[in-house]
Amino acid sequence: MNQPIRMFDLAGADDAVRFSPNCWRTRLALAHKGLAAETVAWRFTEKERIAPSGQGKVPVLVIGEQWLHESWDIAEYLEDHYPQRPSLFGCAQGRAAARFINQWASDVLHPAVARVIVPDIPAALHEMDRAYFRSTREAAFGRSFEAIAAEREPSLAAVRHVLAPLRALLAKQPFLAGSSPAYADHCVFGAFQWARIVSAVTLTAPDDPVSAWVERMLDAYGGLARAAVRSGSKPEIAQ
Amino acid sequence: MNQPIRMFDLAGADDAVRFSPNCWRTRLALAHKGLAAETVAWRFTEKERIAPSGQGKVPVLVIGEQWLHESWDIAEYLEDHYPQRPSLFGCAQGRAAARFINQWASDVLHPAVARVIVPDIPAALHEMDRAYFRSTREAAFGRSFEAIAAEREPSLAAVRHVLAPLRALLAKQPFLAGSSPAYADHCVFGAFQWARIVSAVTLTAPDDPVSAWVERMLDAYGGLARAAVRSGSKPEIAQ
Repeated sequence: MNQPIRMFDLAGADDAVRFSPNCWRTRLALAHKGLAAETVAWRFTEKERIAPSGQGKVPVLVIGEQWLHESWDIAEYLEDHYPQRPSLFGCAQGRAAARFINQWASDVLHPAVARVIVPDIPAALHEMDRAYFRSTREAAFGRSFEAIAAEREPSLAAVRHVLAPLRALLAKQPFLAGSSPAYADHCVFGAFQWARIVSAVTLTAPDDPVSAWVERMLDAYGGLARAAVRSGSKPEIAQ
Repeated sequence: MNQPIRMFDLAGADDAVRFSPNCWRTRLALAHKGLAAETVAWRFTEKERIAPSGQGKVPVLVIGEQWLHESWDIAEYLEDHYPQRPSLFGCAQGRAAARFINQWASDVLHPAVARVIVPDIPAALHEMDRAYFRSTREAAFGRSFEAIAAEREPSLAAVRHVLAPLRALLAKQPFLAGSSPAYADHCVFGAFQWARIVSAVTLTAPDDPVSAWVERMLDAYGGLARAAVRSGSKPEIAQ
């Protein structure tokens, strides 16, 4: 009855390693809606494969003739086109407020997490992506991966500082969306799943309420995020 | 039919100068619900007048025998006890997500704005509050008001940096709560009204989407916030 959904999903050297925070937002949103999707391994440099979307980044969803991109726009599309399925936002006000959280995650949390884990990413990448990734990211950060790696401790402290409002919230309620997860959670959790898949660093201390929420998110949707293949088999670095 | 509502509201030397960001959250929430309230001028050092609330900060609402405090808890009370009035949150998910925004405003925005405007506050205060305010705030900041004032420019730059996710959001939608204001807006706007009432500094540049939203919030609820008396009659400092 529903049209089949194909999703271009950023992959590492191993097809099974899927580490994009923005793709994880979409995968969780699809799971929330109970929509099956065929995820297609895609690499940074395969721009032409997603050219019909009109741009060069994933997630890209293909539903029938529709090519969709931008994780937020995809979430709105899923909400509006599958209204009979569990809601990602609850109501118009919930959607509007979730968009602030999504923006905060993109503008504040992602750059902070990137400073911690970016030096770990090349090891996860397909050979074809390594030079592209290093040159674009080093240009964006204005420093080499080696210099970024040397600042890991203060960068980790900065992530924990940035998490202050999330920490305070999750000490009061189990999920950003309230009593159960929804898109307000998906859009933030993507960053934690990104770190978990490519890095041995644990972003939050064990007694941090954020850590308990991460565990709940790993268990959600039948343990979808927990089952994800991690790059290498690095032991976790205890903090 | 509704019980009369009394609200203890932080006031300056002039009874009419009401500058607390947290009290403005509550005043806007009351206006949103169409609830009239008698606001009572209160000063920082008049702890005994609000002792029945079990703590020493405003806003404090008195509804019948109920003494309520904490702006977020008051908003939830109003939503739950006046459900037939316009909703502050829209739905359970909207409430949960607004709580993150409220927490972000309290934990990130308020401290950043305070660094800019705190040196202007003593001039607005009632004589009885000045020594208390200076000693508690200088202890909290770990520096004198004079030292804080000397850092006004970098502090203002820091506010504008912190506003990044709000700026990006308000370039896409007119209010945090969507097409019209609700508590997600009230909880953030309080900080702007605080600055507007006690300081001549303009927090955002004229072409910032946040500035246009501030104007919309000043006009909302019959121009309630715009009509508020400002401390002194300082001309605005153009940025």
